[in-house]
Amino acid sequence: MSQFGSKMRAIVKPERSPGLEMTLVDIPSIGPTEALIKVQATSICGTDLHIFKWDPWARAHVEPPIVVGHEFCGQVVDVGREVTQVKIGDYVSAESHIICQHCSQCRTGNGHICKNTRIIGVGRDGCWAEYIAMPEFNLWPNPPEMPLEIASIQENFGNAVHTAFATDVTARTVLVSGCGPVGLMAVAVCKAAGAHQIFATDISPYRLRLAKQMGAHFAYNVSEVDIVSRIREITNGEGVDVLLEMSGAGSAIDQGFTVLRDGGEAALLGLAPAAIGFDLNSHIVFKGATVYGIAGRRLWTTWYQMRGLLHSGAVDLSPLITHRFALAEYEDAIQVMQSGQSGKVVMFPDGVPA
Amino acid sequence: MSQFGSKMRAIVKPERSPGLEMTLVDIPSIGPTEALIKVQATSICGTDLHIFKWDPWARAHVEPPIVVGHEFCGQVVDVGREVTQVKIGDYVSAESHIICQHCSQCRTGNGHICKNTRIIGVGRDGCWAEYIAMPEFNLWPNPPEMPLEIASIQENFGNAVHTAFATDVTARTVLVSGCGPVGLMAVAVCKAAGAHQIFATDISPYRLRLAKQMGAHFAYNVSEVDIVSRIREITNGEGVDVLLEMSGAGSAIDQGFTVLRDGGEAALLGLAPAAIGFDLNSHIVFKGATVYGIAGRRLWTTWYQMRGLLHSGAVDLSPLITHRFALAEYEDAIQVMQSGQSGKVVMFPDGVPA
Amino acid sequence: MSQFGSKMRAIVKPERSPGLEMTLVDIPSIGPTEALIKVQATSICGTDLHIFKWDPWARAHVEPPIVVGHEFCGQVVDVGREVTQVKIGDYVSAESHIICQHCSQCRTGNGHICKNTRIIGVGRDGCWAEYIAMPEFNLWPNPPEMPLEIASIQENFGNAVHTAFATDVTARTVLVSGCGPVGLMAVAVCKAAGAHQIFATDISPYRLRLAKQMGAHFAYNVSEVDIVSRIREITNGEGVDVLLEMSGAGSAIDQGFTVLRDGGEAALLGLAPAAIGFDLNSHIVFKGATVYGIAGRRLWTTWYQMRGLLHSGAVDLSPLITHRFALAEYEDAIQVMQSGQSGKVVMFPDGVPA
Amino acid sequence: MSQFGSKMRAIVKPERSPGLEMTLVDIPSIGPTEALIKVQATSICGTDLHIFKWDPWARAHVEPPIVVGHEFCGQVVDVGREVTQVKIGDYVSAESHIICQHCSQCRTGNGHICKNTRIIGVGRDGCWAEYIAMPEFNLWPNPPEMPLEIASIQENFGNAVHTAFATDVTARTVLVSGCGPVGLMAVAVCKAAGAHQIFATDISPYRLRLAKQMGAHFAYNVSEVDIVSRIREITNGEGVDVLLEMSGAGSAIDQGFTVLRDGGEAALLGLAPAAIGFDLNSHIVFKGATVYGIAGRRLWTTWYQMRGLLHSGAVDLSPLITHRFALAEYEDAIQVMQSGQSGKVVMFPDGVPA
Repeated sequence: MSQFGSKMRAIVKPERSPGLEMTLVDIPSIGPTEALIKVQATSICGTDLHIFKWDPWARAHVEPPIVVGHEFCGQVVDVGREVTQVKIGDYVSAESHIICQHCSQCRTGNGHICKNTRIIGVGRDGCWAEYIAMPEFNLWPNPPEMPLEIASIQENFGNAVHTAFATDVTARTVLVSGCGPVGLMAVAVCKAAGAHQIFATDISPYRLRLAKQMGAHFAYNVSEVDIVSRIREITNGEGVDVLLEMSGAGSAIDQGFTVLRDGGEAALLGLAPAAIGFDLNSHIVFKGATVYGIAGRRLWTTWYQMRGLLHSGAVDLSPLITHRFALAEYEDAIQVMQSGQSGKVVMFPDGVPA
Repeated sequence: MSQFGSKMRAIVKPERSPGLEMTLVDIPSIGPTEALIKVQATSICGTDLHIFKWDPWARAHVEPPIVVGHEFCGQVVDVGREVTQVKIGDYVSAESHIICQHCSQCRTGNGHICKNTRIIGVGRDGCWAEYIAMPEFNLWPNPPEMPLEIASIQENFGNAVHTAFATDVTARTVLVSGCGPVGLMAVAVCKAAGAHQIFATDISPYRLRLAKQMGAHFAYNVSEVDIVSRIREITNGEGVDVLLEMSGAGSAIDQGFTVLRDGGEAALLGLAPAAIGFDLNSHIVFKGATVYGIAGRRLWTTWYQMRGLLHSGAVDLSPLITHRFALAEYEDAIQVMQSGQSGKVVMFPDGVPA
Repeated sequence: MSQFGSKMRAIVKPERSPGLEMTLVDIPSIGPTEALIKVQATSICGTDLHIFKWDPWARAHVEPPIVVGHEFCGQVVDVGREVTQVKIGDYVSAESHIICQHCSQCRTGNGHICKNTRIIGVGRDGCWAEYIAMPEFNLWPNPPEMPLEIASIQENFGNAVHTAFATDVTARTVLVSGCGPVGLMAVAVCKAAGAHQIFATDISPYRLRLAKQMGAHFAYNVSEVDIVSRIREITNGEGVDVLLEMSGAGSAIDQGFTVLRDGGEAALLGLAPAAIGFDLNSHIVFKGATVYGIAGRRLWTTWYQMRGLLHSGAVDLSPLITHRFALAEYEDAIQVMQSGQSGKVVMFPDGVPA
Repeated sequence: MSQFGSKMRAIVKPERSPGLEMTLVDIPSIGPTEALIKVQATSICGTDLHIFKWDPWARAHVEPPIVVGHEFCGQVVDVGREVTQVKIGDYVSAESHIICQHCSQCRTGNGHICKNTRIIGVGRDGCWAEYIAMPEFNLWPNPPEMPLEIASIQENFGNAVHTAFATDVTARTVLVSGCGPVGLMAVAVCKAAGAHQIFATDISPYRLRLAKQMGAHFAYNVSEVDIVSRIREITNGEGVDVLLEMSGAGSAIDQGFTVLRDGGEAALLGLAPAAIGFDLNSHIVFKGATVYGIAGRRLWTTWYQMRGLLHSGAVDLSPLITHRFALAEYEDAIQVMQSGQSGKVVMFPDGVPA
């Protein structure tokens, strides 16, 4: 692949221990149905922090050496001989789940829970690099005017859209519990979809300020406010119609279900560290609640929904891009992300654009 | 009922012929489960025009003498002895369909298509009067700060909400065909719910201007623009995801279904004057379309949705209130409504508020 | 109420302690919208056993003295002056939940989770008696040819129908965990609806035999069979499409969710004794599962569905009626019910019919 | 492809005029993602008759010369080098719609309405031949014990399943209008799914007898019975909950919608010869009806549903296989199919099995 040289810089988990390192690796070769993408922006997800820290989840799912990262956008610079849907020069983002397309899930429109999924940056080389090889199937064309930062975080935005639209939020009251980046994007989606009242909760004042900025009507610090009684008061004792659980914290899950109205809907994206004590009777059965587990993004329904929300301007994600770094500054970027004092953190392999 | 005197002014269809007249009639007496409402504002609907003109539909459905009108708000001034949910002084609007509550429709959450519905102003005395008697069941409490005009048109707004929310408009492209008041309100609902692109069509420049004001991204005069090719062009050949048919015009229905994308959804509220030639094969079968017939408002799901949209400010109906009259000026009010040069026209039994 | 005498025999919880007693109480008087029913058959539910035993749930929900029992059928023998939908002589069953009809749940077609529900035999005098007063609204007309036992257990059958039809069982694989009477009826509903494979589990060989009789393709004793691996084997590793949880046992809930396929649906009716350890991540989130909490029966959609299933013969509940007693033999009846060696146990105030 | 010889017998539309002929053509070659199937059974669909007769639809959609036929089963005898999901010796049926997999429909789980569909026997060589080349993607594995006739008609059975399951038929009353083979299979599906009452209509006594055999509770000859009043009488004035329209006859469509209950659901598969006069107001709008257009089969949800229905025995299609012919007798087979005195007609390239 001489036209790009044979080596590229990449952020790699080199072995089964904490940390990452920047190193030179081979530019990936592509198969007949793949494209090679020059990465223009790549963003950091909570998953990347797990891999950095090498926590139990990472130990169970990641096999070094591997290039990390799964959120990005870039330009197609080469295509395999059977590729028909993208061409060199296209500006694309990508679905990070590479699915098998032949299991029963894939064959019934449920590719987001494909049994054989491989995720870039987790089970296959990722995008914190100058180049990445991706199946043509996984690429999503972006409009030329979309900023690189926004294009990069679409994969993650898709989690928020998938979660919010698993339920019906329009004209209804919603609790978004947990204001990490996905929670904040979920707030924006609820606002765009005409939610009646959006309650956002977290323990970080920084993030609660962002929640208000993204459209939350009420943003509460759960370490200071008894949100169950506060929300009941505001909703005339009804509780919320919808719970979007983004925190994975046992107490937040419990409070969220407590304040969910009878007959309400809950969508769960946040991951608890382990099995938790959970009162199925009062939280689900007596309540006649409906609960949706959310994994990934629906292929490609969620992506079309994102396009609609972004193209119309109903959702503006730009306030959420709080930090920009060159890819070489990945250690600083990770530190910011870990601080809780950030929205989305985006890195640029060729340096932060002017 | 001496506290109010025994007579009131009311607009009445006195006999089986065109026209209406203002006359004195008895203030209605109320049964044990009814309330008496002092009407503060009442608005004009297309149905009222049918009754005024005494067209074939009116001849088939209305039995004079009858007080007309079915959109209103007002204050509870008396309650029957079994009434428990409202009290004197309450500020209310009302569902105009008085349902039986024991047919199979009512018993399965489908009271909006009750087999024994009686509609005020059509099958029973209506609200173009100083007072109206209503079953407690039909009353909807308004927040005190809601303007009278908005409270009055909620019944009609409910048609728009019911139509738009029969489908899924969020992040999708929508064609609202027909920009009478309900079409205009549907545009506002789609905008509030985060529709991607809203196309509005009509033949009245006045109403197309209002459509833009209510949130349409594109407003086309079908007498000037080939909307099928125009919409296809803008949607990259896909057509619209959703058709909200509000016109009842055969050509608009045909064009709307033609430009509906494969797998799209259509909600039909507009009434064609009679059976029309309709190509079920290409408009529904091959297209894999889903079509919803819309009657009335869902009791009371639609009303709760309205509350959410209005209370959050996601929908602002005030630009739609284009004309105000004293009830005594009903002939002028009807004339404006018939001109097509209006949004909603609201009348006030006690005179237009300052 | 002289035409029936003034006293009747009834099974009563006289005070806040274990046990029940048969005693003479006043025949209930009826209000203007109520009917008096001569009870012809009444059946035993798990709830009745809780009240008999005076367990913590009963202590929290029941205020003696009270006539117990909530499943029955009978004949209308008197009606209040405003009753219009039933008449003396009608053969009826009844919805046991007396709902307020004006809360937000009742007003949106969700009366089954009414905030102000009172249940006969729990919060108001029940039907283990010669007569019961019921709101007209709660009565359901039976076809004359329906056997008394079947008519009596419809209320309970409704739990099974509501649970099964919250999901989509037709042509799909289903696990019914817990083969008490409701579980057994759920098996019959799944069979009637054309489920592909029905797996039933319990620890009682008696009930597992009944499960096969009601239509289960596979009936496993969980104390003998590793159902997770067995079901995976039979379903080619997919697991079941649907879980109907009827046991309330923590281990059954855990196994059921473990063997639920990705993207599957679970409906929960069984009540765990308390909060349990529950792995939301693997059971719901990663799996992309949908979970429905089930309370009562949908008013009246579930009753119409029951009518369809019974009238067509698609469901035959008669094998489930394993024991018949005179009401005076209620202690024997309760003992049989507690033994686990029974299906439904039905009692007759006038003695077991020949 | 010497192992099979280079030529095969096939039924071909040789030119743009009525009729078909059996001739020798090249055994098809296969691409890298295709398989070659030895056809063991192939059945006749209404579409094949259109092509035989060379009617306006055929003239608009078919470009001779072409091998006709799209329903079949057979054995895989060769596979392309990239094929991974089937192997030589597999017993398969096939989805006849070859979809593009990259249009917006295909990318959102709606491949059945792919914009670029090519149908075998219509837009590409079909299966009335000894061999057919098919994309691996389109093949569906059959259990070895499935009879050839049943395996062959699955494609067509899928139309019936897709239509019936677009609505909710369990415990509900259903009108199947039109008892051609797909209507008859829809009757069987409704029966399997526990429909309350199944009304079947046609003008052929032969087919009405088959309808009863497949499970219809009532089978009416519309040339003899006023089905609107008859069905209303049997349903206590309610009408049917569901209409499955399989006839495409204007009068049947009109009667079907007339007798559809308020709030009912209609699924339309039958094709009218052209636009018809249709009363949208009374048939859809006032009625609050929901209407589904049905095209093809959902990929692959419908096929999984078929598997469930056939494997459990809930549907037995064997009574529907009324005639068997050698493929060389195709003219006799077509004549039988045209007579209306048949269910499904199956042909065997190697002669009718003993």
